[in-house]
Amino acid sequence: MTQYPLFSLIQSELALIEQELASAVHSQVELATDIGNHLLRAGGKRLRPALYLLCAKSAERELAPVLPVAVAIELIHMATLVHDDVIDEASTRRGLTTANVRWGNPLAVLTGDYLFAKAFSLVAGHAGNNVLRALTDAICVICEGEIVQAKNLFDSSQTEAEYLTRSGKKTAEFIAVSCELGAKAAGLPEEDAASLRNFGYSIGMAFQLTDDILDFTGSQAQVGKPVGNDLRQGVLTLPVLYALEASPRRGELADLIQGRDMAEDKLARCLSIIKDTEAIEYSYQRVHEYLDSARSALPEAARGEVRSALSGVADFVGLRNF
Amino acid sequence: MTQYPLFSLIQSELALIEQELASAVHSQVELATDIGNHLLRAGGKRLRPALYLLCAKSAERELAPVLPVAVAIELIHMATLVHDDVIDEASTRRGLTTANVRWGNPLAVLTGDYLFAKAFSLVAGHAGNNVLRALTDAICVICEGEIVQAKNLFDSSQTEAEYLTRSGKKTAEFIAVSCELGAKAAGLPEEDAASLRNFGYSIGMAFQLTDDILDFTGSQAQVGKPVGNDLRQGVLTLPVLYALEASPRRGELADLIQGRDMAEDKLARCLSIIKDTEAIEYSYQRVHEYLDSARSALPEAARGEVRSALSGVADFVGLRNF
Repeated sequence: MTQYPLFSLIQSELALIEQELASAVHSQVELATDIGNHLLRAGGKRLRPALYLLCAKSAERELAPVLPVAVAIELIHMATLVHDDVIDEASTRRGLTTANVRWGNPLAVLTGDYLFAKAFSLVAGHAGNNVLRALTDAICVICEGEIVQAKNLFDSSQTEAEYLTRSGKKTAEFIAVSCELGAKAAGLPEEDAASLRNFGYSIGMAFQLTDDILDFTGSQAQVGKPVGNDLRQGVLTLPVLYALEASPRRGELADLIQGRDMAEDKLARCLSIIKDTEAIEYSYQRVHEYLDSARSALPEAARGEVRSALSGVADFVGLRNF
Repeated sequence: MTQYPLFSLIQSELALIEQELASAVHSQVELATDIGNHLLRAGGKRLRPALYLLCAKSAERELAPVLPVAVAIELIHMATLVHDDVIDEASTRRGLTTANVRWGNPLAVLTGDYLFAKAFSLVAGHAGNNVLRALTDAICVICEGEIVQAKNLFDSSQTEAEYLTRSGKKTAEFIAVSCELGAKAAGLPEEDAASLRNFGYSIGMAFQLTDDILDFTGSQAQVGKPVGNDLRQGVLTLPVLYALEASPRRGELADLIQGRDMAEDKLARCLSIIKDTEAIEYSYQRVHEYLDSARSALPEAARGEVRSALSGVADFVGLRNF
């Protein structure tokens, strides 16, 4: 796993989590293990378990008992990613072939289900029902967000507010819950747990918006998937919605999108229309507003080194280009 | 819902479960509710929650506290069905258009995930971690069974023993766990819970084998899907494996299967080869062996009316043609 200096406070716990993830994806059925290992090899930032652990470190406590929940959080995230790739018919993620392309949709769907079940099995063995309930409710919200997204493909009439609600459901909510559960594991009072929840929500929004920006500005090498991939699938993100409002060629853009056929030449025209506007600057401005909210949500009750690490996560999300 | 006289002992509880299912599939997102309602309208035998409830009635206890687990069991089953239909590219189930055809694979995958999460959320709110653990472990086993099935498509070298193991994983295990959890909810001793687990496992095997037989002998009107559907998908069930051993034309059958292209004329040839053997009689013989095992597993500790209801379930599985 890539080492992120900003997670240095929980370096040893993150290393343990990698081991536990490897053991969690191990199945009697060799093929299931192979697919699980492939997903692990694709890596990832482990952002959600890292935030959970950092929040859990808000008070001086032993982290060992909370590690299974951190592992479960990442397994749930992996499950949603493998299903997302089926849904989006994605062929690469983080530069590696996706499970759906390598093993086919059936095995990718089943592996996602397997990872969900493994995650809950871990939580059932190591945490209270309130933790489980928070995680399952968050998954319901993620699904609702994804369902709304699937329903609104190529719908050029959707608003920025709808986009923000959808991003909240599909990404920010789960990160918010990860932080809240960490805070509760640290024994922080309800009010501070709610603050860390807000921190996580804002970080999640900034993270999703950055993802959506990188879909336009990042190279295949940086983000591990082709440029304009969301738009190709009909997923309209903030830069597109901005251009649909602000571009002098907004009528042409809307027509191209409503045609629901994103052949390469049409996609290229859309991208050029979007890039001729202030869409990216506007979107980054929203990212920085969310990051400011995140920083100002950090509660005094958390230990100084935890607050500065969480603040570092906000800096990282603002700077990342992968 | 169709009323089955054999479930008369738990008629009122099953009616409550229908209400709770309707409330569980209700989402803020209208489309999610629509898909959930469609799945509910397709009905089903509610075999798993019914067995859970019957076993829970082994001792004289109030059933109200265990209803949420019964609902969760059916939600999990519904989730696996909706994902199965994505995997098998099925277009009808129980005579209705499948969710994947009506709403597309993305929404079907997401709805399945949503139902899984709803199920666990219910269990987290109303039952102990041991119940949750048993259910999540059973889902892992179902996924493993389905993964093995997906891997072995069109593989004419698989054995009857492999088929039985796979059927155990994908169907019997979950029914076994439903019975075991019911027995434990009734407070039966460990040994009797294990007996009811064995009862459920045998019922589950008989149920899956009957399903696989009906794929050959049932009409579209009876089973709600086209004849020979499993074989068309490359899923080799007991009648096929029998014919691959016993038919004088087994070489031709193996060649047709290994060709991995089940056009209608080829499928018809396979079906005729299979029907010229004793495959169906042989398979029914195995069904009845499992049903005998099921009946003899019924523990004395269960109340008489529960034992006779469970025995009635065994009769029903042996007679069903839908």
